[in-house]
Amino acid sequence: MLSKLKTLLIGTPLPTIELAEKRLNKIRALAAFSPDALSSIAYANQEIYLGLVVAGSAGLSLAWPIGLAITGLLVIVAISYYQTIQGYPSGGGSYVVARKNLGTLPGLITAAALLIGYLLTAAVSLTAGVEAIASAIPSLWPYRVEIALFLLAVIAIANLRGLRESGTLMAVPVYLFLFTYLPMLAYGLVRLLIDGVTPLETIAPAPVTGVTLFLILHTFSAGCTALTGIEAISNGVPAFRPPEAKNAGRTIQVMAALMAILFVGSIGLTQYLGVTAEAQETILSAMARRLLGDGPFYLLIQITTMLILAVAANTSFAGFPRLAAILARDGFIPRQLSNLGDRLVFANGIILLAVATGGLIILFGGDSHLLIPLFAVGVFLAFTLSQAGMVRHWWRERQPGWQLKAVLNGLGALATGTTVLIIGISKFVEGAWITVVIIPVLVFGFLQISAHYRSVSHQLSLHGLPPDIKPSPPLRVVLPISGVHRGMVEAVNFARSISSDVTAVYIELEPGGAEHVRQQWQRLWPDVNLVVLPSPYRSIIRPLLEYLDQTDREHHDGRLAAVVLPEFVPARWWQALLHNQTTWMLKTALLYRRRNLGYQRVIIDMPFHLKD
Amino acid sequence: MLSKLKTLLIGTPLPTIELAEKRLNKIRALAAFSPDALSSIAYANQEIYLGLVVAGSAGLSLAWPIGLAITGLLVIVAISYYQTIQGYPSGGGSYVVARKNLGTLPGLITAAALLIGYLLTAAVSLTAGVEAIASAIPSLWPYRVEIALFLLAVIAIANLRGLRESGTLMAVPVYLFLFTYLPMLAYGLVRLLIDGVTPLETIAPAPVTGVTLFLILHTFSAGCTALTGIEAISNGVPAFRPPEAKNAGRTIQVMAALMAILFVGSIGLTQYLGVTAEAQETILSAMARRLLGDGPFYLLIQITTMLILAVAANTSFAGFPRLAAILARDGFIPRQLSNLGDRLVFANGIILLAVATGGLIILFGGDSHLLIPLFAVGVFLAFTLSQAGMVRHWWRERQPGWQLKAVLNGLGALATGTTVLIIGISKFVEGAWITVVIIPVLVFGFLQISAHYRSVSHQLSLHGLPPDIKPSPPLRVVLPISGVHRGMVEAVNFARSISSDVTAVYIELEPGGAEHVRQQWQRLWPDVNLVVLPSPYRSIIRPLLEYLDQTDREHHDGRLAAVVLPEFVPARWWQALLHNQTTWMLKTALLYRRRNLGYQRVIIDMPFHLKD
Repeated sequence: MLSKLKTLLIGTPLPTIELAEKRLNKIRALAAFSPDALSSIAYANQEIYLGLVVAGSAGLSLAWPIGLAITGLLVIVAISYYQTIQGYPSGGGSYVVARKNLGTLPGLITAAALLIGYLLTAAVSLTAGVEAIASAIPSLWPYRVEIALFLLAVIAIANLRGLRESGTLMAVPVYLFLFTYLPMLAYGLVRLLIDGVTPLETIAPAPVTGVTLFLILHTFSAGCTALTGIEAISNGVPAFRPPEAKNAGRTIQVMAALMAILFVGSIGLTQYLGVTAEAQETILSAMARRLLGDGPFYLLIQITTMLILAVAANTSFAGFPRLAAILARDGFIPRQLSNLGDRLVFANGIILLAVATGGLIILFGGDSHLLIPLFAVGVFLAFTLSQAGMVRHWWRERQPGWQLKAVLNGLGALATGTTVLIIGISKFVEGAWITVVIIPVLVFGFLQISAHYRSVSHQLSLHGLPPDIKPSPPLRVVLPISGVHRGMVEAVNFARSISSDVTAVYIELEPGGAEHVRQQWQRLWPDVNLVVLPSPYRSIIRPLLEYLDQTDREHHDGRLAAVVLPEFVPARWWQALLHNQTTWMLKTALLYRRRNLGYQRVIIDMPFHLKD
Repeated sequence: MLSKLKTLLIGTPLPTIELAEKRLNKIRALAAFSPDALSSIAYANQEIYLGLVVAGSAGLSLAWPIGLAITGLLVIVAISYYQTIQGYPSGGGSYVVARKNLGTLPGLITAAALLIGYLLTAAVSLTAGVEAIASAIPSLWPYRVEIALFLLAVIAIANLRGLRESGTLMAVPVYLFLFTYLPMLAYGLVRLLIDGVTPLETIAPAPVTGVTLFLILHTFSAGCTALTGIEAISNGVPAFRPPEAKNAGRTIQVMAALMAILFVGSIGLTQYLGVTAEAQETILSAMARRLLGDGPFYLLIQITTMLILAVAANTSFAGFPRLAAILARDGFIPRQLSNLGDRLVFANGIILLAVATGGLIILFGGDSHLLIPLFAVGVFLAFTLSQAGMVRHWWRERQPGWQLKAVLNGLGALATGTTVLIIGISKFVEGAWITVVIIPVLVFGFLQISAHYRSVSHQLSLHGLPPDIKPSPPLRVVLPISGVHRGMVEAVNFARSISSDVTAVYIELEPGGAEHVRQQWQRLWPDVNLVVLPSPYRSIIRPLLEYLDQTDREHHDGRLAAVVLPEFVPARWWQALLHNQTTWMLKTALLYRRRNLGYQRVIIDMPFHLKD
């Protein structure tokens, strides 16, 4: 039944041979790699507005300069990643670049930052998308968590089915977004030229606080989330049609230009048109409502915003499992994360991301504003380490003109590194500390896991082992019995067929209870030794383990001890609840017991299938 | 670590030999068996008040007559149970009486009703107890669920440690209750004689509805919860000092008299003193406050009420596990419920009751009034069947004077049976339907489980089985391998030591991946056959199971097939998360696969213990 449900949701398994990449032209590639980057304006603008509005009109008048500063940073970072594309046309990705050039530890820090970044992209995009639609339909506002979880489930299932981020379906929201937002901004500019600037003093709420340096840095760092997603193209260069690096380079230029236009345009219009938002509305929604009224155009803008944010969340479902699979192959996280699922996707990574995202959405009540402080630290840390890695890369290669390239990437590293510090300090109390704590914890975990895998691989090595063809010495067999009944017969026969040294063991729970068992046993198998162990504390497992340890010590002759366990298998699953799980507990106890004593014990399970 | 926590909470295991009953004198026996019965007035009065207050003063003036009618019923039921004690001095209990005299089905219906009754006694007593204390300390009112769950946890842990309901600790609240309530009622009577009757018209809230027959029946049936617990003594006759039946008979007389005085006294005083209660206070609390003011005496009364209700909930923790153990021994519910835990208590029954009670408290928001409709149906159904069983008992024995005894029990059955109908109909919509639905479901479950156990016992019977000493035919051994490594060596040696027919099987996940494995295998074990199975869908388990089925069909020669599974055992528990659980899944699949084909398969587990 479970397996049918799985097939219904996920689809039938696909053979491994269907695993192949389609190459993308620039139009499709832009749609595939840009949703996260373009949609960032939805929450970045909101953060800048919320950061400044507490200082009234004096605060809000800083939106434009802060927006320009962030756009400057955007240009620097875009140039840096343009260079990464040229340096790693095979699709580096920040983890690969940092690990190769800076070493394992910086690589792992980058990986931890990226994993957190993917997780928060999914959580922030989904909550911001739901906020966009709930701004237009206020009755949805109280159900933001539920709606976000529903969207999350749809995206997770679609990805488990094997949805490709390169599909046409994914391209529609991206171009719909561009072809509604850009005309709206142009229309807004025309209105601004006709109507003139609305002075902020007339519309801004009374200031709660003054303009301080902290307020400015705080707002700047929150607004830096506008840059998230800009690195996506550099991870996916091999997906472009040849010449890959050149096409990818052109695409990142176009994308960065669009990001800058959308970001600066919307910030500027908001400020100079004098737009403010209510508590249950986003500032982008308020701006669209101001320009387009409450009609269908406004609704289209909000739906489009939600759709591109959902697609942005979807890009995390491509990036996170892929990075997790690379880390798993490198032995830093559990290997299961590199398993290809039925539909040729990294199913475990998708499920892990979905569960973590859902947890974050519930924990933070579906409020994107509360999630943002966790977000930017990780992203900018990965930027910094990746750019620093590129500087090292150019220095190592030292091809003609390397100095300029190194300087450009160095500028990127410096700018993003400074931003990390600003974000880390100004947002520390609000949640950045969570990321600051989790990254070292993750890296420590990566290293522990890696040490374990290396130790196992060493223990399993055949190095120095001669071909060993000596047969094992004769077996001692111990056969724990729960009574004398038909389920015993095959077990006794089997035990005697593999060894001449068989001992049955009966645990006596009530004083005198063993007499009847002993008589029946004598009648059926007079030549098999029966040992009765009293158990004054009614435990079955403890006396048996103690008996096995004791006989192992007595027979320290290198002979293997095998334990034959007769086990009832009920016909229906619920019937398992009607039987003591003694055999199962005994198997588990035997498997994990005394791994240091060096006794090798074989556990032999004799299923006895019950009918009905 | 888990085991240490268990020892801390529950204590160290006790040997079976300490299992013995202490005999109780009448003073202690009253304390042990009466808390549930005596404390019933706390919620019964509340129900009568809530049932009548909606009809204003005209309604409230019916409290006294309804109280008298319920007291009449109390006398009839007490006489019936007095006779049960005489008829079953070995401690019948309603289930035993009904099953012996009326047959299995009525017995099981009684058992289901009793189990539900115990569960609801715990839930209602705890919530009513918390309401008593929250009436005195209103700031606790919003936290009733949390407080009730905390008390529940304390009671459950105490019972898992092996608390006896006969302990001195349990007797204190009972006698404290009697020695505070009886004087308070006497004082109230004196005040009533001095001050005279307060007319209800002056104090009752305006009627919302008129007095109807339905209102009266509805209130009567809710008030019948005053009788719950009256049967407890009849279950515990063997715990009395000899002459057991005589002492138990005297005790039930005293208990019934106390119940009647407390019930009628508090109902009468409430009505004639003209007491009404606020929404967040119980009527008993309002009466105590009226008589004693807000001072320490009032607080003592409320604390005492809570304590006796907690002790009443505790009696469920004695009765439920004991009845469950009897049903488990009779094979009607899972056998694990008859296991004696470390501390010589039926630990599984205690845990089951605690979880179910906690669930009810949360589900009904800690409101005793909402739980009451579920409560009385079950209790009175058990009363009825038990009394009907007694009629049959006397008729069967037909000793001198049996007619009178049969008539008395018949009267009990008739009165309680009528009450069941009244409760079932008047409270149906409010929740009695839940009990009406659950009782048949439980009985159906009992019968299914019983059928399963009988079928198993039949299948395990040695009847007709000749002593079978023929050794099994030679084994075929299949050895699934994940690669060639050191963990394989012992497994191959063992397989060859028990059989000359060993086949290693390798599942090839990626086309061409097997070549390297085959070469290594050839080098180490050239004389052991290696089969490579391609797996285009990347499943390991399915191709292996299909191979096993196919070879079983080919070799349909009665030979056993054994599967030897090398299994890594990590040194630390968390490391298990770092390895594919393939061996575990394979073991499970082999255990449950194709039970109808009749192939017997032996599953042999070769643990390979990893260091660190």
